[in-house]
Order: sequence, then C-alpha cells, then structure tokens
Amino acid sequence: MLKVGLLGAGRIAGVHAVAISGHSGSRLQAVSDINADAAARLAAAHGAEARATEAILADPQIDAVLIATSTDTHSDLIERATAAGKAVLCEKPVDLSLERARACMARVAPTGKPVMIGFNRRFDPNFAGLKAALTAGEIGKAELLSITSFDPAPPPVAYVKVSGGLFRDMMIHDFDMANFIMGDLPVTVSAVGSSIVDPAIGAAGDVDTAVVTLTYADGRIAVIKNSRRAVYGYDQRVEILGSEGLLQAQNMLETTVVKSTKAGVTGAKPMHFFLERYMTAYRTEWAAFVAAVTEGADLPVTLADGVAALAMAEAATRSAKTGAPVALAGLLA
Amino acid sequence: MLKVGLLGAGRIAGVHAVAISGHSGSRLQAVSDINADAAARLAAAHGAEARATEAILADPQIDAVLIATSTDTHSDLIERATAAGKAVLCEKPVDLSLERARACMARVAPTGKPVMIGFNRRFDPNFAGLKAALTAGEIGKAELLSITSFDPAPPPVAYVKVSGGLFRDMMIHDFDMANFIMGDLPVTVSAVGSSIVDPAIGAAGDVDTAVVTLTYADGRIAVIKNSRRAVYGYDQRVEILGSEGLLQAQNMLETTVVKSTKAGVTGAKPMHFFLERYMTAYRTEWAAFVAAVTEGADLPVTLADGVAALAMAEAATRSAKTGAPVALAGLLA
Amino acid sequence: MLKVGLLGAGRIAGVHAVAISGHSGSRLQAVSDINADAAARLAAAHGAEARATEAILADPQIDAVLIATSTDTHSDLIERATAAGKAVLCEKPVDLSLERARACMARVAPTGKPVMIGFNRRFDPNFAGLKAALTAGEIGKAELLSITSFDPAPPPVAYVKVSGGLFRDMMIHDFDMANFIMGDLPVTVSAVGSSIVDPAIGAAGDVDTAVVTLTYADGRIAVIKNSRRAVYGYDQRVEILGSEGLLQAQNMLETTVVKSTKAGVTGAKPMHFFLERYMTAYRTEWAAFVAAVTEGADLPVTLADGVAALAMAEAATRSAKTGAPVALAGLLA
Amino acid sequence: MLKVGLLGAGRIAGVHAVAISGHSGSRLQAVSDINADAAARLAAAHGAEARATEAILADPQIDAVLIATSTDTHSDLIERATAAGKAVLCEKPVDLSLERARACMARVAPTGKPVMIGFNRRFDPNFAGLKAALTAGEIGKAELLSITSFDPAPPPVAYVKVSGGLFRDMMIHDFDMANFIMGDLPVTVSAVGSSIVDPAIGAAGDVDTAVVTLTYADGRIAVIKNSRRAVYGYDQRVEILGSEGLLQAQNMLETTVVKSTKAGVTGAKPMHFFLERYMTAYRTEWAAFVAAVTEGADLPVTLADGVAALAMAEAATRSAKTGAPVALAGLLA
Repeated sequence: MLKVGLLGAGRIAGVHAVAISGHSGSRLQAVSDINADAAARLAAAHGAEARATEAILADPQIDAVLIATSTDTHSDLIERATAAGKAVLCEKPVDLSLERARACMARVAPTGKPVMIGFNRRFDPNFAGLKAALTAGEIGKAELLSITSFDPAPPPVAYVKVSGGLFRDMMIHDFDMANFIMGDLPVTVSAVGSSIVDPAIGAAGDVDTAVVTLTYADGRIAVIKNSRRAVYGYDQRVEILGSEGLLQAQNMLETTVVKSTKAGVTGAKPMHFFLERYMTAYRTEWAAFVAAVTEGADLPVTLADGVAALAMAEAATRSAKTGAPVALAGLLA
Repeated sequence: MLKVGLLGAGRIAGVHAVAISGHSGSRLQAVSDINADAAARLAAAHGAEARATEAILADPQIDAVLIATSTDTHSDLIERATAAGKAVLCEKPVDLSLERARACMARVAPTGKPVMIGFNRRFDPNFAGLKAALTAGEIGKAELLSITSFDPAPPPVAYVKVSGGLFRDMMIHDFDMANFIMGDLPVTVSAVGSSIVDPAIGAAGDVDTAVVTLTYADGRIAVIKNSRRAVYGYDQRVEILGSEGLLQAQNMLETTVVKSTKAGVTGAKPMHFFLERYMTAYRTEWAAFVAAVTEGADLPVTLADGVAALAMAEAATRSAKTGAPVALAGLLA
Repeated sequence: MLKVGLLGAGRIAGVHAVAISGHSGSRLQAVSDINADAAARLAAAHGAEARATEAILADPQIDAVLIATSTDTHSDLIERATAAGKAVLCEKPVDLSLERARACMARVAPTGKPVMIGFNRRFDPNFAGLKAALTAGEIGKAELLSITSFDPAPPPVAYVKVSGGLFRDMMIHDFDMANFIMGDLPVTVSAVGSSIVDPAIGAAGDVDTAVVTLTYADGRIAVIKNSRRAVYGYDQRVEILGSEGLLQAQNMLETTVVKSTKAGVTGAKPMHFFLERYMTAYRTEWAAFVAAVTEGADLPVTLADGVAALAMAEAATRSAKTGAPVALAGLLA
Repeated sequence: MLKVGLLGAGRIAGVHAVAISGHSGSRLQAVSDINADAAARLAAAHGAEARATEAILADPQIDAVLIATSTDTHSDLIERATAAGKAVLCEKPVDLSLERARACMARVAPTGKPVMIGFNRRFDPNFAGLKAALTAGEIGKAELLSITSFDPAPPPVAYVKVSGGLFRDMMIHDFDMANFIMGDLPVTVSAVGSSIVDPAIGAAGDVDTAVVTLTYADGRIAVIKNSRRAVYGYDQRVEILGSEGLLQAQNMLETTVVKSTKAGVTGAKPMHFFLERYMTAYRTEWAAFVAAVTEGADLPVTLADGVAALAMAEAATRSAKTGAPVALAGLLA
C-alpha cells in the first residue's frame, strides 16, 4: 500500500485525490495547501489529514508525494521531496524556466528517486490506442503527425500574464504528445502565433492561436495547432500518416444522440474540458505511477520528458518572435 | 445517510455495491448471499458486514435493500422487505410469472414502501438524452420507434432453460425502453422469433433472434429487434421518427481511434457488454433511487413498470407461438 | 447500338432518357406520351422523334422499349411490346392487381423476350456493395435484415387514392430489396400500419406509417419500416446481421460539410429524394439492361421479381387489416 | 451556344470534353493535340473535329478555348488565344515560372478577354459549401485554416523531375484553396519538406511530404499539409476554426457501406483520386465559365488568382530550402 501525500488542494489536486483513493494499492494520508481550509476540506473528504508540506515531506511513513501546487513551486518541491526519499508525481510543467528545470533534473538524478511528470494525455485510451497501433506497425512507418488542441475558452488575462505563455502553459501538452507518438525529439521547432481571439492576450505579450512545425532527423514532420477558444468544446485530436495508412484519435462526445431535422443532422459536442475528457486518463496515470514505484517498472513519463517538452516550448516561444526555426539541440545541451 | 443491505453477492451485486459505496448519501451496511464466501468477500471489500438475509430484513438500522438475487426469489424478497419497512431497489425482472408479479404488486401496495425496478438503461446518458430531446419537442410528435438490442454472444443453453425465454430475460429491457420512450403502454404485441443463431436454443424451447411490433392507441408503432449474438459487441441503439425529425442514440465505442488503410477505414467496436456500456447508468440509477427515497421524489421506475414489461414479454411469448397479435390489456386487467 | 423507344415523358421518363442517351451502346429513337407536348419536348432534348406508342411498337428498327407510363398501363404495354418482339424495361410496379400481373407474366413467357422491372435500388452502389459483401461471406450467414425507407414528404391525398396503397406503391421497393438481399422469398408477411402522419391518408383508406415483418423457411427474419414523412430528407438504409457481423448501407449526404458550434456538431442531411439519391442507380440499371439484352446476359431483375414483390405487397395489405400473418405461397401459387 | 476549342487530348482534356458536351450552353467544335491520334479519337467521341491548334485559334467561329496541354505551353497559349479574341479556361498552373506567368498576365490585360484558371476544387460542393457557410457568418470570424491534401500514390520520378516540384505541381491547388477560403493573400509563407515517402524524389531535388504555414495581416493563420502518398486514397479535407465554431469539409467515400465484425467497424475509403472526387467540380467549373463568358458574370477564378498561387508556391519552394519565412509581397510586386 503506497502512502501518499498530496501537495496542493486545488481543482486538479481534487481529481488526483479521487484517483489515489480509488486505487486499491494507494492511500491518501495527508494533504497540504497554502489555503489551510482547502487542505482541510480535501483531506476530510478522503479520510486523510491536513498537514504542512514540511511535515509531509519529513514523515517517513509517506512513500510518495503528488505535487499539484502552482508551477513556480514545482522544481523546488521536486528537489525537496526526492531529497526526502519520496517518489514524486508532479503536474506539468516542471517549471517555467528551462534553466531551472534542467538544474532540478541535475539535482534529482543523484537521489535515484522516481520522478514522473503528469502528462496525463499519454494515458487517454484514445491516444494510447493510437500509439499502440502505430507501434504495432499497423500503418507502417510514421511520416507526418498532426495534433489539434483547442481549449473551449481563453483563460483570464490575469492568468495569461503569469502562465509563461501559450507554448509553455498549453502547447507543452502537445509537445509531449509529439514526443510520445514520435518516440524521438525534433531537430527544429518553427512557430507562428497571433492574438486573434483576444487582443488583450496580445497586449499581455502572449498569443492565443499558434501553429508549430517540428522536423525530425529522419525526415518526419509534425505540426501542432493550438487555439485558446473553440466554442463547441475541448477539441483534442491526433492524426498520423504512415507509409501504410492513417491513424486518427478523434474527439470524445458528450453523448451519442443524433438529431436529424430540416436544419441538418446534429450530434453532441466534444466533452467540454479536460476534467471530463481526461477523467479516465488521470486514473490510468496514477495506476501507472503506483505500478512503477511499487513494482519497479519503468516510469512511463520521466523528468527528462518534462524538460524536453519545456525546451520545445522555449524554442517555439523564440521562433514565434523571430519567425526563424530554432534548433532544439542548443536548448538541451 | 441511507443505510443499505445488499441481497446477493454475484457479478451484478458487485456493480451495485460500487455504486452504493461511491454515493455520498448511502452506505453499504450488510451483504447476504446463499454463497457465504461470496457475501463475505463482497462485504469486506466495502467495509460492510456479511449477514443472513433474514437478519438484514429484521435490522431496524437498515433503511433500504437492493435485491440482486436470482429471479425466482425477487417477488418473495420484495414482499418481505416492504413488509419489514424497507425501501427496495430490485433487479429486473420482477418475476418470470406475470401472475406472481401481479400478486406481489398487490401485496406491496398497502405497505406504501417505495419499490423501484432496476431498468438501468433508462439512466444511460444516451437514451436519457434522447428521451429528454423528445420530451422537449425537438422532433415534434413521436410516430415510429425502433430499438436494436443485440448481445455479443448467446448465454449457455443451461441458462436459457431457466431464463424464462428471450422475451422475459432479454427483451424485457427493450419493452421497458419502449414504455420509457413512448410514455404509454402498447395496445397489441406481435412477435416472430427463430433459433437461427443456435439450434440448441430452439431445442430448449426458446428463440435467439426475434422481432416484436407494438401498436399504440394513437397510431404510433414500435419495433424491437433482438439477437443473442452480434460478434462485434453489444449493439444497443434506439431511434425514433417524429413529425419534425429523427432522434437516434447510437452505440458507445471502445475508443475513438480510426485507422485508414488499403483495407478501408476502421473504427473501434461498440463497448463489449453491459458492464462497460451501462457503468454510468448503474451509478445514476442508484443516485435516482437514493434521491427518491430520501427526498420523497417520485420513483423513476416503479413496480408497475416492472409488471408492465413482464406482461409485454408474456404477450410476445404467446404471439411468437401463434403468429397472431396479442392484446396487452387482457394481461394487465 | 440498341435503339430504344421510350413510352412516357414524365419526370422519371426524363431520368431514363438521360441514361439512355448517356450510354454508348444505346440510342433514344422515339418518345411517346398521352401529352404530345411533353413527348415532343423530351424527344427534342435528346435528338429523338416524338411518335405514337403504336408506331413505336410497330417499328422494326426499335429494339427495346422503356415503359415509364402510369402504372395501370404497364401490364398491357409489356404484353404488347413483347408480342412486337421488343425487349422491355418497365418501371415498377408491374400492376396494382396481382392477378393481372400474373396473367401478364403468363402471356409474356411464350415470347421469350426479356422483361426487366425497374427496381432501381438494386443498382445503388451502397446496397449493391452490401449485397456483394454479404455474398462474399464477409459477415457469415445472414440472420436478421432491417430496411428503413422513409420519404421526405407524403404525396397528395389525390395520388394516394389511386396509388394502390403504401404497400404496393412505396414499400414494394423494399420488398424487392428484401428479396434481393435475402436471395429468397419469405414464407409469411405480417404488417401493421397507421395514418399518424396525415389522417386524410387514413380517410382515403391507406396508411402512411408501417412496419412489416417477414419470416423465412430457414429461420431468417426481415423487418421493413416505412414512413411517408421524414422531414430531414430521403432516409434509405439497409442493415443485416449475420453470424459473423453486421453490414449497413447508410444514407448518402448532400455534402460532407460539418459545422461545430455551441449548438452541437451538425452535418448535412440525406440527399433529398430519389432523383438525387438514385441518379447513379438509374444509369447502372440501364447499363445492366443493355448488357443483358445485347450480350445475352441474365436479367438482373425479372418480371417474376416484379410479381413476387407485388404479391408481398398484397400480403402486407391484407395483414395490416387483420393483424394476422399472411402466407405468401397462397398468393403465388 | 458557346463554341469551344479544346487544346490537348489527354486524360484531363477528356474530362473537360465531357463537361463541355454535357452543358446545354456549349458545344465542343474542335480538338487539337500534338498526338494527332488522340485528338482524333477525342474529337470523334464528341462529334467534334480534330484540327491544328493554329487553325482553332484562327477560326472566328470558335468563342472559347480550354487549354489542357502540358504546363510549359500554358502562358504561350493563353497569350495567343486572348490575342485571337478567345475566352480562355486554362488548366493550372499558369506556368512553372512565376516571372513568365506575370508577363503573361501583363500581356493578357490589354485584350480584355476573360481568362479563368482551372482551380477545380473551388467548385467541389463540399469546399464550396464550407466557403458559403463561412461567408454567411455561421462560425463568426475566421481564425485558423487547415488543409489536408494527400495523393494516393507518388507520381513517377520522371514526372517529378519536370513537375516544377511539389509546391508548384501539387500544393498549388491548396494555395488557391487557402486564397479562396481566406479571401485574402498571406503575408508570409513558411515551409518544411522532406522526401520520406521516396528517397528518389529527394534525389531528384523535390520533396514528397510538406507542411506550409501562412500568416495573414489580420492575425489569421493557415496550415497546409501535403503528402504524395496516402495508401487509403485521395485525402482532401479542409477545416477552419472561427470565433463561433468550426467548419470541416470531409472526404467523400466510395460507398456508405459499413461492416462491423470482430475486427472492428469498417467503412469505405475516400474516393480514390481526383477524377472520381472532383467529377462534379469539373462540371460546375465549366458551367461557371460558360456563365461568366456568355452572361458577363465575374470570373470565379482569375488569371491573377493563378499568379498568386504560383507566387505562394515559389515562396514555399524558397522557404523549404532556407527554413526562413518568405514574404509574399516581394514576389508579387
């Protein structure tokens, strides 16, 4: 039984708490948050204790911590938790600063403790199914990957200002998805972006619509499209062309009800946002972490994966400014 | 907090136990089964006690029982539980004997205790969504209903022999679905059936493939198709034509992955069987029962609904033998 | 080069004229119609001559006639044309009277001339594709056939009164489709019908909504659904369950455009009516007729097929009145 | 009646000949080709005359010419035909040389004769439907356009060598589609490409897989994906995200037959190649040309459109070599 401390008691922490409690091999022991009330409520709902982060990290009974705090605390908490001997599952991104994230990785390495980054989409049954079919050779050799990833509505500008920007905050999921599907890092990253959805986002120095093109050493190409606003819901699609076919992972819909009238044939919208769409993925992600930690299996997503996605976000941020492609190697060396 | 006794510890009882435990307004207190080991295991998994059925019914702390035992015990347990002052959620069908079911209904009435029958499909978000759209007038006035309901594989012949036959055992769900969607009982029931899937089912006196046509007083028509075998999975579709359009509830698929190759464009199969397809429905069903019992809301499915569906199964069984339509009124009078 | 006389110059005759002219192996020589203007216009548009029916039949240069006149003239014209040595393609139905149609068949037989009935749907690439896949064994042995066939809007009541009724006028296409797919005639025909779309149709002695169930000697079952009104368009679907799978031929849509908005995901409606949906089928039908006549190939649809479908319509008409199944054999003996 | 001379008698000329003959307002008078036999055959099949190109251009009876010869002759023939007073519909591209095409446009202008470029895809009912919905404001303001355009199989390397390269030969259609949908030219063009499908294509100095990103003055973005090989057929999709929704034009399929078996749910492939997919588009294109020429309507695609698409191809060719974005203005000034 893996005894778990949960750092953070916000919305996403609540999702993880359910996954931890619902897994027969793990138990939520303690919750901490800078908002003590939130920590107390979440702990109570799961028969756990609200404690200080420090106390959780110092408790030898705690085997693992799940870090679901604000991004600027991630690197620090990963370092402290691994130094304290805990296995770690940390929400993405590792950090907004690539340099800081790389330093974190360097400090964690000697501890030998497992650190997994919460790229939950790898565990979505649809994307995982696509990857499995690709790996099984069902469409031959991969050639051209497309990722469509649109949020239903833009976040408040206040959030945008501290988010690190679309590439680090939103597209980082898609960079990791590209790495997951392609099984390799790209050589170059080219980005274009604009703030056509909301000029206030542009005024805040960020973009809300972007296309990134990735090239690979063997000639493969990937393209990622992001928009902060798709009014019809959370649009999350992946498709990959190979030498013997095409694989697509399409949207999950709210229901299967279809209505045909004079106005046309209307089906349900995509599931609205990430909590609905990736509910299963969060549970599967946690199960994979528990399996890796307790059975010594390989981590399905590593701290290095988190750093790689962050480097791609950094490259895209630079490319979107200059228009020129950015070589990834220079950011990871 | 509704304190619940679970009668039965088989597969479907396990599904209900998860729903009971997972609901914040109910708690599983006790489990009984003729197989004491099974009861003990299921009780342990949910922090409940394994007890004798008699003890559960006699316990004034128990507010409600969920009956998930074999069909031949349903009527008796419904009567005993309501006599003991319990609210009841009983798995379908009420009984294999229409006469016995009607007697049960007569005996329960004076107790005033709520008895709900577990027609879980009413709580499937797709069918419920179709019903809601129909009720909202989105396709005008209903005219022609079609229900397709195919199991992935036929049950063992030994099961068929004691099942009461396809109409009482399998199509009873679809009779209730017709009643749910149409909001009224049919006037006549006409059935044809054959044992083309497995002649051994025919030798056992049953059919494995059947079509039933229902007519309504106002001219509406419904048709139900059943097969014991659809090798591609659990095929569960409803469609209704109205004066201003068509509503369809289509199958839920295992994933959204689509593969295009020289061989065609291939998507995932329907979810394999009822546990996968109706997982959400079982949880919603339980929540509806808890709400009805604790908040005095109307039961969404009543004992009378269970008896009506059984009468339709009886009518279909007779019609399949003679070929002639059977008037439902004669069976309910 | 097959030289063709076209009897009739109405809407469907115009469709056939295009097919005849567009085929490299046939030439439209002459057109007749009780409306001389219509005949003249259609003839002119195709570089043909407007003539009297009698003159066409008497002309030894004419190899074949296509009969697209009103139904009550079909039997007579088939007899006269074959007696005159012409090959015949006649629009469905053969006749409204089963007795008359059977007499026609008896009179035609001695002439040895080919008579094909225009069940154009057999030549629809979707239904033909379904049939080919079934014949190729792709879903094993057929078990349960479903045909959905809804018109976009009911015809005028004046038409209904002379149409012979829904079963002979509309469902006759679906009876032939069942015969085409199943490759055998049913043993019994059971029908229910109502005039829920338009009570005036009921007052005229007809139904506008109907379900027919067919049983086969080997245990197979078929069900046909008809409605005179599907406001979203011409709904033409076939599906068949077999021992190893399901085949469906779905609707053809007006375009492939899909719109996702807050209101849902909306695609195009089915093609509106038979001219759009079956345009290709009419051309393929004609090509098959030309091939049969000029190359001595087997007729893909025979006069006997036309009589069989008519007998099923007769059986359904009777069953809808009494409620009891009608044995087909008695009508074909 | 528009009297038409057809220059060229190859495959695509044959498609146009059918459209010309099938239009009630045009007549195919003459056909020329460097292969005299081909010209004779095509002319004979349409009741036209085989003549020399010179003779066709000199014939005052000829109102219009359709140029379907090899690309290197296009500019010259456009100039000669307009000088001779003919209206022109010319197959894409205008030329492989942007400079030559611009010179052609300059020479044609003073003649005042209509010159339409055969970007047939604008007339596809699906893409035209998408454009109409966009123009009607059904998804608000356009933001992000995606075009997927894959051929079923790569052409012979010999063809690749003289094709002008993927961007001028294949993607030029997609550049025009972007211009059609967006209603404006992009500011910058960025391209990446590789020869992952066939290294021999790379050895010939071309790419077979490419992604191009376009930026617009108002912040809109477009991305075009091309591959020379999609083994499942001709993959032609367009989707555009707007402020109030998403519009997609999906593939047209060979049939609507769907097969569900243990192996999954399999539908038909996309129509195999351009002749099947764009058959309707070629007819509509011709009708639009006839309407423009005979009724003085605006040309739906102009010579300037042809030059703009060629400039984008030139820009993409340069960008794919350097990796840097290329400003379009410099190529059109």
